[in-house]
Amino acid sequence: MSKEITSRALDYSQWYNDLVIKSELADYSAVRGCMVIKPYGYALWENMRDQLDKMFKETGHVNAYFPLLVPKSLFEAEEKNAEGFAKECAVVTHYRLKADPNRKGKLMVDPEAKLEEELVIRPTSEAIIWNTYKTWVQSYRDLPILINQWANVVRWEMRTRLFLRTAEFLWQEGHTAHATKDEAVEETIRMVNVYATFVENYMAVPVIIGVKSESERFAGAEDTYCIEALMQDGKALQAGTSHFLGQNFAKAFEVQYLNKENKQEYVWATSWGVSTRLIGALIMAHSDDEGLILPPRIAPLQVVIVPIYKGEESKEAIDKKANELVKALKAKGIRVKYDDSDHSRPGYKFAAYELKGVPVRLALGLRDLDQNVVEMARRDTKEKTTVSLDGLDTRIEILLEEIQQNLYQRALQFRNENIRKADTWDEFLDILDNKAGFISAHWDGTADTEEKIKDETKATIRCIPLDSAEEAGICILTGKPSSRRVLFARAY
Amino acid sequence: MSKEITSRALDYSQWYNDLVIKSELADYSAVRGCMVIKPYGYALWENMRDQLDKMFKETGHVNAYFPLLVPKSLFEAEEKNAEGFAKECAVVTHYRLKADPNRKGKLMVDPEAKLEEELVIRPTSEAIIWNTYKTWVQSYRDLPILINQWANVVRWEMRTRLFLRTAEFLWQEGHTAHATKDEAVEETIRMVNVYATFVENYMAVPVIIGVKSESERFAGAEDTYCIEALMQDGKALQAGTSHFLGQNFAKAFEVQYLNKENKQEYVWATSWGVSTRLIGALIMAHSDDEGLILPPRIAPLQVVIVPIYKGEESKEAIDKKANELVKALKAKGIRVKYDDSDHSRPGYKFAAYELKGVPVRLALGLRDLDQNVVEMARRDTKEKTTVSLDGLDTRIEILLEEIQQNLYQRALQFRNENIRKADTWDEFLDILDNKAGFISAHWDGTADTEEKIKDETKATIRCIPLDSAEEAGICILTGKPSSRRVLFARAY
Repeated sequence: MSKEITSRALDYSQWYNDLVIKSELADYSAVRGCMVIKPYGYALWENMRDQLDKMFKETGHVNAYFPLLVPKSLFEAEEKNAEGFAKECAVVTHYRLKADPNRKGKLMVDPEAKLEEELVIRPTSEAIIWNTYKTWVQSYRDLPILINQWANVVRWEMRTRLFLRTAEFLWQEGHTAHATKDEAVEETIRMVNVYATFVENYMAVPVIIGVKSESERFAGAEDTYCIEALMQDGKALQAGTSHFLGQNFAKAFEVQYLNKENKQEYVWATSWGVSTRLIGALIMAHSDDEGLILPPRIAPLQVVIVPIYKGEESKEAIDKKANELVKALKAKGIRVKYDDSDHSRPGYKFAAYELKGVPVRLALGLRDLDQNVVEMARRDTKEKTTVSLDGLDTRIEILLEEIQQNLYQRALQFRNENIRKADTWDEFLDILDNKAGFISAHWDGTADTEEKIKDETKATIRCIPLDSAEEAGICILTGKPSSRRVLFARAY
Repeated sequence: MSKEITSRALDYSQWYNDLVIKSELADYSAVRGCMVIKPYGYALWENMRDQLDKMFKETGHVNAYFPLLVPKSLFEAEEKNAEGFAKECAVVTHYRLKADPNRKGKLMVDPEAKLEEELVIRPTSEAIIWNTYKTWVQSYRDLPILINQWANVVRWEMRTRLFLRTAEFLWQEGHTAHATKDEAVEETIRMVNVYATFVENYMAVPVIIGVKSESERFAGAEDTYCIEALMQDGKALQAGTSHFLGQNFAKAFEVQYLNKENKQEYVWATSWGVSTRLIGALIMAHSDDEGLILPPRIAPLQVVIVPIYKGEESKEAIDKKANELVKALKAKGIRVKYDDSDHSRPGYKFAAYELKGVPVRLALGLRDLDQNVVEMARRDTKEKTTVSLDGLDTRIEILLEEIQQNLYQRALQFRNENIRKADTWDEFLDILDNKAGFISAHWDGTADTEEKIKDETKATIRCIPLDSAEEAGICILTGKPSSRRVLFARAY
C-alpha cells in the first residue's frame, strides 16, 4: 500500500516522521517549526488532556486563563527565567498592517503602529501569572492558589520535530502559590507523582521519577523534579517536569502576604507542565514498523469492525450483527467504529487500522455469522483468534485491559533491561555507543564534569532518581568521590 | 459588604464591570486590552465549551489544531478577509531577545533576529486552514471536511470591555469544506441553528436567527448568518455567526477537487464561531443589582449549603446532615458545595453566593434540623421557602430545571416586549431614544441608507430575520420601496 513507512532498523528518525504523518496524527504547516495537529492526533490529545484535567481537579486545582502576550518589562523581571528563555522568544512589535502602496492588493506592517513596549508571546507564563497573583494575595487566607492553565506557548526552536519539539505547542502549566516552603515542596512532589501515575497508567509508559542536576533545572527554579521515559532506540525522553520555584518569582514581582502573626512574608511557588510532546513519547515507546500501537485507555478508537462480504445481500446480514455489536460495546463505554465504507477492500482497511494503532480489530464475514463467531485481532501482539459472538462485549472489555497491561509490562521490561551500571569511563562509553539506554553511574556532583561528559558524549544527566540509595563510589570521569549514582542517557 | 456593585439604574456600564470583577469571573491584566479569566469565569466557560463541543460532535465535526502564527503572504491571499482584519493584527517581527548592553539585567529585541517574513497572530484562521486544506483535498472522496478548533485569537481592538471585546479572546472556529454549494449552505444554516439551540437551551437567552446585510458581513463571506440577543439595557448583542464563504478561500488558496465526473472544481467553504463574548451576553441578559444570575445548566456551582450554628456541638449535627445532602445531590449529578468555612458569618456568605449567581442556596440550622426542614432560597426570584429535608434532592433537581425555564421565559418576555415596529423616521428615533430594544422597520436595501442611519443614530441592521415575512412597505429613511422588515438596534 501507499502508506508504507520506513522501518525502525533502517532509520529510526525517518520511521518516526513517517508514522506521525501517515497515521494522520499531525502534518507540517506553512509556518516554520509549527505543525497542524490533525483530527486523529487531536482526539488522542483530548483523551490525554481530559484524564490529566480530572487528576488535577481531584488534587484540588482549578483552571484559569492568562494572556498570551507578556510585556517585555514583566518578562525580564525574574532574571534567570528571562535569560533562560530570551533566545527563543517570538516578539510582537506592531499592532497593524496596512495596504502596501507598491504591491497592489498586498499588505505591509504599518510603521506608525509600533508598540511602545514590545510583547513576548509566552514561552511559559510565570511572569504574567505572578504579576497577577500580586494583586490577588494579601493575607494567608488567600493562600494557597492552586491554578492550572491549558494553553499554547511559543518557543522559537531552531531544529524542530513533529510533537517532540515544535515552535508552538499545546500544554498545561500549573502555577501554585503557598504560604510555606514545606507546602510548596509537597505540591511539587505531588504533581510529579500525578504525572508519573498518568504516564504509566494511561500511556502505559514506565517512568523514573527524579530530580534534575543544577544545570538541567528550569530557568528560575530551585529544584526541578521530572519523569524520564525510555524510547525504543535507547534514548531517554523527559516527559514532564514539576518545579519548586522557591521565592524567586514572589521576590521579582513583590508578592507578599500577611501571615497569622501579622508579618509580611514572600510567597512560595511551584510550576509544573506537560505538553503535546507526550504524544512523541507515546509513539516511540510502543509503535512498530506497521504503525502506531496505542494504549486502549487513551486510544481515540478502541475497536474497529470490518465487514467481509461479497454482494449486498450478505452485507445486510453482517450490517445487522455489526450494529448490534456496536451498540453493545458503546453501552460499555467502548469507543468503536463499524467501517463499512465501500471504497476500499478489507485488506486495505486492516492495514489502515494497524497503521492507526487501533487496539482491537474484528473481521466479520458471512461464514463467521453462520458459525456465530468473529475473527478478533489484537494490535499489540498481532494475535488473531476466532471467538464466539456470545458475550463478545465483555470479552473485548477484558481484552482491552489486557492490552493496556501488556503494553506497560513490555515497555517496563525493555526499560529495566536497559538500565545498566557503569563504573569506569570505558564502560560508560561502551554502553552509550553499543547498547544505549540509561546508564547508572557515579558523578562528582559538579556542573563542570557534567558539561564535559555532555560535550564528549552527548549524554546528559537525566535525573537523580528519587529512590536511589546512598552508595559510596567514584566519578566515572574525574575519579572524585560520589555518594550516589545518577542516571545518564542521550535524550530527545 | 465591601463587594458592593453599582446599580444598573445608576450606570449600566459600570454595573457590568463591577459585576465581572467582584463576582470573580475575570480581572484586568497588565497587557493592554487583555484580561485574565479567573477560575470561576473559566469554570463557566468550561461548561459552555463542553456542551458546545458535544453538539459539534453530534453534528459530525471533529476537532483539530492549526498554528497560531500566520505568514503575512498567506494572510493577505484572500484580499477581502485580509483587508477586513489588517487594522487589528498583532505582528511578530523578531524571534529573539538579548541582553541590553545599556541596562544591566534587562533585555532588548535582538535586531539580528528579524524574521524574513512577518507573522500575524491569527485574528481568525481561514488563511492558515485553507492553505492546509489545499494539501488534504484531491478528490470528492476527501470531502466534506468538518473540522472545529478551540483556540485563542488576537484582534487589536482600541476600546476593550471585559469579555465583550478584548484584544485576546478564546473561541471556537469551525471550518468546513464541501463539494457543492448546497451542502455548504446547508452546513452554514445547521451551525447557526446549533448556536441558537445552545444559547437558548443552556444560557437561557432567547435569540433571533437572521442574515446580516452586506455591510455587516464577515470579511470574505458571501453570506453571514447570526444570532442576535437583547440585553437588559435594550441594546442588542451578536452572540454567534456562521458564514457561507462560497469559493472565495478555495480560489485564493487554489483548493480544487476531482469530482465524480473527473473534472476539477473549486471547493465550497463555511466558517462559524462563538467566543468568550457569550459570557458578556449571559451576564447582561439575566443578572441584577445583587450580582450574577446564572442558568443552572451551565452554572459552575448549582447549589450551596450554608450552616447556621453557634458552638461546635450544634455544628457537628449540621455537618452530618449537610454531608448527607451533598452526597445525595452529587449522586444526581448536581454541582453542590457545603460552605462551612468559619471565617465569615452566614449573612456574608449569603451575599457572596448571590453575587456569584448560584441558583439555589440552602441555609441549615439546628432548629431546622429538629423540625426536619431547611430554608431554600432561589437566586432568580429571591423567594425563600422552608421545605422538608425528605426527598430534598429530587425537589432541588426539579427546582433547578424550573429556574432554568423561568430565566428563559423572563428573558423571552422582555425581548418580545422590546421588539417594536417603526413605520416612520420619527417613530424610529423615538423608540431608539426612549425605549431602545429591537426596531422592526422597512429599509430600501442599500448600503448607503444603512450607513446614513448608522451615522445619525448609531443603530445598525442587526439582521434580516430568517422567519420574516414578505411585506410591502417604504424605507423609514428614504421612502423608497421595501419588500420586508429588518431588525435595527444599537448594539454591543
